[in-house]
Amino acid sequence: MNNFTYCTPTRYVFGRDTESQTGQLVRQYLGAPSRVMIVIGGGSVRRSGLLDRVIASLEASGISHIILEGINPNPTDDRVYEGIDICRREGITAILAVGGGSVIDTAKAIALGVPYDGDFWDFYAGKLPAEVALPVGVVLTIPAAGSEGSGNSVITRLDGLHKISLRSDFALRPKFAVMNPVLTFTLPPFQTASGIADMMAHIMERYFSPTPSVEVTDRLAEGLLKAIMNEAPKVMARPDDYEARANIMWAGTMAHNGICGCGRVEDWVSHFMEHELSAVYGVTHGAGLAVVFPAYLRFMADELPWKVAQWSRRVMGVDVAGDDSAVAHEGVRRLRAFFTSIGLPVTLGELGISDPDFPLLVRKLHEDKGEIIGGYRRLNAADTDRIYRLMLS
Amino acid sequence: MNNFTYCTPTRYVFGRDTESQTGQLVRQYLGAPSRVMIVIGGGSVRRSGLLDRVIASLEASGISHIILEGINPNPTDDRVYEGIDICRREGITAILAVGGGSVIDTAKAIALGVPYDGDFWDFYAGKLPAEVALPVGVVLTIPAAGSEGSGNSVITRLDGLHKISLRSDFALRPKFAVMNPVLTFTLPPFQTASGIADMMAHIMERYFSPTPSVEVTDRLAEGLLKAIMNEAPKVMARPDDYEARANIMWAGTMAHNGICGCGRVEDWVSHFMEHELSAVYGVTHGAGLAVVFPAYLRFMADELPWKVAQWSRRVMGVDVAGDDSAVAHEGVRRLRAFFTSIGLPVTLGELGISDPDFPLLVRKLHEDKGEIIGGYRRLNAADTDRIYRLMLS
Repeated sequence: MNNFTYCTPTRYVFGRDTESQTGQLVRQYLGAPSRVMIVIGGGSVRRSGLLDRVIASLEASGISHIILEGINPNPTDDRVYEGIDICRREGITAILAVGGGSVIDTAKAIALGVPYDGDFWDFYAGKLPAEVALPVGVVLTIPAAGSEGSGNSVITRLDGLHKISLRSDFALRPKFAVMNPVLTFTLPPFQTASGIADMMAHIMERYFSPTPSVEVTDRLAEGLLKAIMNEAPKVMARPDDYEARANIMWAGTMAHNGICGCGRVEDWVSHFMEHELSAVYGVTHGAGLAVVFPAYLRFMADELPWKVAQWSRRVMGVDVAGDDSAVAHEGVRRLRAFFTSIGLPVTLGELGISDPDFPLLVRKLHEDKGEIIGGYRRLNAADTDRIYRLMLS
Repeated sequence: MNNFTYCTPTRYVFGRDTESQTGQLVRQYLGAPSRVMIVIGGGSVRRSGLLDRVIASLEASGISHIILEGINPNPTDDRVYEGIDICRREGITAILAVGGGSVIDTAKAIALGVPYDGDFWDFYAGKLPAEVALPVGVVLTIPAAGSEGSGNSVITRLDGLHKISLRSDFALRPKFAVMNPVLTFTLPPFQTASGIADMMAHIMERYFSPTPSVEVTDRLAEGLLKAIMNEAPKVMARPDDYEARANIMWAGTMAHNGICGCGRVEDWVSHFMEHELSAVYGVTHGAGLAVVFPAYLRFMADELPWKVAQWSRRVMGVDVAGDDSAVAHEGVRRLRAFFTSIGLPVTLGELGISDPDFPLLVRKLHEDKGEIIGGYRRLNAADTDRIYRLMLS
């Protein structure tokens, strides 16, 4: 086990009707502002009435607001620049994200940009560490990205379509996250399933690690994966199953708040490879991961099977004869079958990419992330080219 | 799943040599005091040289100190009063606990008492909620109580020998916890094993719950229990096995920082019953739990077996034919065998209590905790009397 520092200061307020506490939470944990910027997505939070309830709660606490609306999936830097300008002009000191990962990630980027004199992209480009940001609160509507409890934010730079993930364990963690599972009842099946793939990927990116002897962190990760795979068929079959929705929502937070990474090197190759698919082809992130991760694991089942075999045995219930490689391949087959069973694609064709430009994907990947990438096994461009091509079938 | 609020703001600084960061952590997270009170136990931190290293780190950060020394296991209110007096007299505004649960719990009680005009015991007696306290930092030497990450403190009132646990999720959580597994290499085997029983009990007190559909929280708890049972034989066999010590240390924190309780009613009967054994007979808390918990579970295997059976199947690997009750009893047999294998007692006789005063224990238990106790199944004095008597064999 490696040395580590771990701190998750986000206050999770979980359960039915918890959005009615938003005003009070903003007052208590976002520095008692008289006015906040609310960041939202495409309008479903308006149609559902959630936005009205949140605004009523803010107003009951004497807090007014302005709204930054229409944040899209795979959120882009143009909206961040716009949000930073508005906050500065209006003297906004606290941001409330009402939505899923794209909305929260945009809110975090704005929060980082406002107190910084230069271009906010400097942080995403790795020019300097993210240390100071406006406080951000969250009302979560999509369990997937885990951004409500993480120190991460992923933004796409329109110039060149670079989708970059920033991690700053302390500056970017939301101060609170309101999590009402009822708000997720209306998620379409494809978005629900994509969220499930995303949270599983967040766990597995940490699980596939070269660091030995991380039994506690391994067992927590395995438990979360088993819980998600147990609850997933329930939410797909009955979208208003409160208990199953609640478990999926809580799992999504635990998947990405860092608890599955303590004490070890993490991997993140599958996310990196998917970010290029999203940036170039505009696919849904979670669905892209359902294609990328099995391909990555098939590669590893041949190249470095030990941890894939452990995962196959402990999580996927593989109990077949054979060496680690055979056990690993059987686990991946079961993972693909699971993704298929909840309606996700597992090949590029199923994802809607019929004629993938592998050289472009590989070139952008290594341009963005470096010549050699990956924690579990170091990968060069020849390796990632092979992995991309495994996604064909 | 029940509604819940969860926040763990403690900063864990984990790994080799991390105690050298203590001064810097005190400055950053305990309000930059010029002087702290260091609370320690019986002197092993002096003999090992740890105290010198901590003091050197404080001094390098320009922080002086006074020491409150000789805190005993099952810590008592007299030392808390003494500590409060000294802090007030000396103008101390931050406390550093260097030790295990007894030292940390005493530090927390002092931290709570200093800014309060009345008797600190008012909080433990439930007269008012604990909301304001001096900031506490921890250098952990014993993985067991989980106090380094919890909002709990257990103090024994000498007048009447009432051992009372206070929980205040926010005021009492340490600001940071330095956790170097090397510091635990020298723990005697019995203390190591008792710590293991204590952390397992912290998980199981939360696991045995009447709340249905808590799959995520269940799976996290099961994973932690499996990890502990996997690592325990290693630390018993080789006390300087860094990796195993590290896993046990981290598990002890996760066991009690609340993550295994999210969304459900907790139990805590076994702790309550053990606190009476400790208060009356002065036994080691973890060893007492190794006697109490199996008796409690044998009672439940007859009276309310469903969750005990789930635990038997998922954690203890029980795969025998039979109804839930039979499966549950087999799980308990395996738990007793596990405790025995690491040198712990599983009967009152083995614990050194040859002639237990059951009426006294039952009377004090219900005096301290109420007529009806327990979360998983509500228990009256006749029930707890039965459970105490099951500890005879």
